[in-house]
Amino acid sequence: MTDLTPTLDYSGKVALYEQLYRYISGEIESGRIKSGEKMPSKRALSRHLGISVSTVETVYSILVSEGYLASKPKSGYYVERLELPSDAAGNTKKRTEFAKKPVAAPQYRYTFSTSEVSTELFPYSSWAKLTKEVVYESSDILKRGDKQGDLDLRIELAGFLHQYRGVNCSPEQIIVGAGMEYLTDLLLQLIEPSRRIALETPCYNATYHTMKNNLRDVCFISQDSSGMRVDLLEQSGADIAYVTPSHQFPMGTTMPVSRRSALIKWANEKPERYIIEDDYDSEFRYGSRPIPAMQSRDSAGRVVYIGTLSRSLAPSIRIAFMVLPESLLARYSERFGFASSTVSRLEQQILRRFIASGMFSRHLRRVGLLYRRKRDIICSRLLQNPDISVTGAQAGLHFVMSCPPFTEAEILKRCAARDVRLHGLSEYAHGLPCRPASAVVGFAGLSESDLDKAGRIIAETLRGE
Amino acid sequence: MTDLTPTLDYSGKVALYEQLYRYISGEIESGRIKSGEKMPSKRALSRHLGISVSTVETVYSILVSEGYLASKPKSGYYVERLELPSDAAGNTKKRTEFAKKPVAAPQYRYTFSTSEVSTELFPYSSWAKLTKEVVYESSDILKRGDKQGDLDLRIELAGFLHQYRGVNCSPEQIIVGAGMEYLTDLLLQLIEPSRRIALETPCYNATYHTMKNNLRDVCFISQDSSGMRVDLLEQSGADIAYVTPSHQFPMGTTMPVSRRSALIKWANEKPERYIIEDDYDSEFRYGSRPIPAMQSRDSAGRVVYIGTLSRSLAPSIRIAFMVLPESLLARYSERFGFASSTVSRLEQQILRRFIASGMFSRHLRRVGLLYRRKRDIICSRLLQNPDISVTGAQAGLHFVMSCPPFTEAEILKRCAARDVRLHGLSEYAHGLPCRPASAVVGFAGLSESDLDKAGRIIAETLRGE
Repeated sequence: MTDLTPTLDYSGKVALYEQLYRYISGEIESGRIKSGEKMPSKRALSRHLGISVSTVETVYSILVSEGYLASKPKSGYYVERLELPSDAAGNTKKRTEFAKKPVAAPQYRYTFSTSEVSTELFPYSSWAKLTKEVVYESSDILKRGDKQGDLDLRIELAGFLHQYRGVNCSPEQIIVGAGMEYLTDLLLQLIEPSRRIALETPCYNATYHTMKNNLRDVCFISQDSSGMRVDLLEQSGADIAYVTPSHQFPMGTTMPVSRRSALIKWANEKPERYIIEDDYDSEFRYGSRPIPAMQSRDSAGRVVYIGTLSRSLAPSIRIAFMVLPESLLARYSERFGFASSTVSRLEQQILRRFIASGMFSRHLRRVGLLYRRKRDIICSRLLQNPDISVTGAQAGLHFVMSCPPFTEAEILKRCAARDVRLHGLSEYAHGLPCRPASAVVGFAGLSESDLDKAGRIIAETLRGE
Repeated sequence: MTDLTPTLDYSGKVALYEQLYRYISGEIESGRIKSGEKMPSKRALSRHLGISVSTVETVYSILVSEGYLASKPKSGYYVERLELPSDAAGNTKKRTEFAKKPVAAPQYRYTFSTSEVSTELFPYSSWAKLTKEVVYESSDILKRGDKQGDLDLRIELAGFLHQYRGVNCSPEQIIVGAGMEYLTDLLLQLIEPSRRIALETPCYNATYHTMKNNLRDVCFISQDSSGMRVDLLEQSGADIAYVTPSHQFPMGTTMPVSRRSALIKWANEKPERYIIEDDYDSEFRYGSRPIPAMQSRDSAGRVVYIGTLSRSLAPSIRIAFMVLPESLLARYSERFGFASSTVSRLEQQILRRFIASGMFSRHLRRVGLLYRRKRDIICSRLLQNPDISVTGAQAGLHFVMSCPPFTEAEILKRCAARDVRLHGLSEYAHGLPCRPASAVVGFAGLSESDLDKAGRIIAETLRGE
C-alpha cells in the first residue's frame, strides 16, 4: 500500500481536490507510485489527510477517468500502467486542466443573504417516500411529458394558486419551468422584441440581466411608498411592466389595491400592454391578510403571473410556474409546439403528490411560523437601537433597514468589521439614485440564535459615538 | 353516501376528469348532492365508474380547491355548504374553465417515433436507492448550487465525455442544463445576434424553431453523403454551423473525418466562427468504432459541444450539458453571474453517483445491446422486400428507409392503412427539396415483437402490385 504525504494548502486558494489530484497524478507519472500498486481506500485516505471522503472520491474518479487508476469491484483502486492503450475514442490520456480559481470572497460569521432560505424544516422523509412511490408506481414516468408540465400537476397548481393567491386560471394556462429566469426567457420570446420593458428601481438584478441578455429595451421606473409610479410609467414609452407587488424586491413594499388598479388600468389602455406579476415572497405574510394576486383582478388578459417554489421548498429544487393570459397562450402554442418541459417528471410527480396530500400546505404553515419567529427576533434586536428603522418586514424573507446617522457604506463597513455581512440597497439600483443609507436584511438563512447574536451586534455597532 | 351516475363519454373527445368534474360540481350546485353528505371513496368511485383512481383523485382535488368538497383526514370527502365564506384571497369560488381539447390525432397500432426511447431497462431500483442516499446523506443538497451545475457532477461528466467521446475539457467548461433547447437558448445569448446560423437540411425541427424564436438569422445548407456541404457553407455568409456529426438527424449520416476537418478549417478562418456540435445519437453505435467528437480535434476553441441524457436515460429526466470553448466561457461568466442552474440538485447528485459507481456505463452497454437487437429485427424484416433500402442504420435510434417504386406520401399512406405510423423525411426539410421517397424509422420505442410484426407489415405493403 502506498504512502501518500502531500502538502495540502487548506487556505482555500486552491481547491483541495485539485491539489490532491495534482499530487497523485504527479507521483504516478514520476514513477514514485508504481503501476499495479493498491491505493489506500477512500475512507483511509480521507482519515489520513483529514479531508472529506467525497473529496477523495472526486479525485479518484478523475484519476480513473483519465486512466491513472483502475477500480476493481470489491477490491479497491490500483495504479494503471502509464503506457495505456488509447481509449475507445482514439485519444491518449489528457490531464484535466483546472480553471484559475477566482479569489475567494471573504467569509463572514453572519451573512444576511436574500438568496438563502431556511432548509431545516424540509420534509426529507416525506420527500424520499414520495420519490419511491413515484419511481415504482408511475408506469409511464420515463416517457416524455407535456411541454407545459404534467396536466395533473397543473391541475393541482391551479387549485393551489386559486386557494392561496386568488389566481383565476385553468390548468391549460400554466407552464411549469425550471426557474424564474428560464420562464422569463421563454416569456420574452412571446413578446414583440421592440416593446420597451419597465422595471422597478431598485429591483432584482437577475431580472434586469435576463432582459439585457435577451437584448430587450429596458427602462427603470422609480417607486414611491406604493410601488412603481404609474405617472412615470405612462411617460416611459414602455408597454410591459415587471412588478413584484406582494413584497417588492428589495424595498419590501406591498403594493396597495389602489396602485394595482391603476397599473391594470394602464395595461388596459393599449392592446399590446402587459403586466408581468412576479409574485415574489407572497408565501409568507405576517399579521395582515394577504392581498390576492393582481392576476385575480385582471379581466382583460393583461397580466402574466409568475412564481417559484425555490423559496418555499428549497432553492435547489428548480420548479417555477407561469400563468399566461389567452393571447400569449395562443402565441405560445403556435411557436413552442416542438418544446419539451424543463422539469424532470419525477420531480413534477413528487410535487403533485406533495400538494395533493396536503403536505405542502402543512409545510408552508410550519415554515411560515419559523420565519415569523426569525423576523421577530432580528427586528426586535435591531430596534433596540432607536436610530434604526425597519421597513418592509410585514411579509417575506427580507426587509430594509436604515440608520440615519450613517450612510449605506458606513453601515456595511461597520457591520463587516464585526463579522456581519449585509448587502446595500444600492447594489440593486443599477447606478441610479435610490433611497440612501439602507441595507437589505435577508434573514431566512440564519438560525434563530445567530439572528439573535447578529441583531445585537448590528444594533450595537450602529450606535452613534 | 351519494349515488353518482354520470353519463361519461369515453371517446376521448372530452377528458374524463373534466366530465366528472362538471357532473359532480353541477350536482352540488343544483342541490341534488346535499351539503354535509359523504362522497364515495376514491377507490369505490373508480371501481363504480370503471375509471382510474388517479382521475377521481384529480377531480376531488379540483373540487376541494374550489370549495365544493372538504377533505377530512382519515375519514373522507364531504360536500361543503355552497355559501362559502370568501377564501383567504378574498375571492369567491370560481369554476375551473377548461380549454377546448384539440381534436385528438389518430392512434396507430405501431408508431415509429424518433422522440421515444426504450425505457424497459431503466434501473428503477438503483435510481430509487441513489435518491434515498442523496436525500439523506447530502446535508447541503437543498442549498442553491453552482449555476453551471454541481462541480462534482461536472468532474464526472468531463471524465465520462473524455472516455466515451474523446471530448477534451475541464469541468469548468461544462454547463449542465434542463434540456438541449434550454442550452441552445443560453448559447444564443452568448453569440452576436447579427451572426447568421447555418443548419443542415433536413434537420431537427426543434433546433430550427429555437433559433427562430430567438429571432436569429438562419440559413439551410444541403448535405451530401458526408453531411453538411462546406462549399455551400462558405457561400452562405453564415458564421455559425450547427451540425449533428455522429448520426445526422434525420438522414442518419455519420460525418467522416475528412468533412469534420474541413468544417473545423472553415471555423478557424474567421475569429467569430463557431461550430455547434450536437452529439446526437452518439451513445449507440453498431459495428464500427465510434468516431471521437469534433470537439476533440478543435485546437482553436471553435467548437461548442452539446449533448443530452434524455435518450440514454429517459426523456422525462431533463439533463443535458454543453462544453464551451474559452472565449464563450468568458462571455458566459461575464453575462450570467446572476444565473441559477436549471437542473434540480437532487437529480444532479443522483446522476453523479450513477456515473461514478459505474452503473451508467453498465446501463449504456445493456440498452446498447437491446437497441442493436431492435435495429437488427426491424432492418431484417424490411429488407425482405428487395425494393426497400435502408441508410443510416449504423448508429442511433432511427434510420431512413426508401422504396423507389413509391413516393414518400405513398409510403406513409400505405403503412397508415395497415395501422403503422411513419414520419416522412420532408417533415424535417422546412419546405426545401430533399431526397424524396423516404420515411424516417424511429424504432427505439417499440418492443422487439412489435418491431417484428410492424416490419413484416411494411415490407409486405410496399411490394409493387
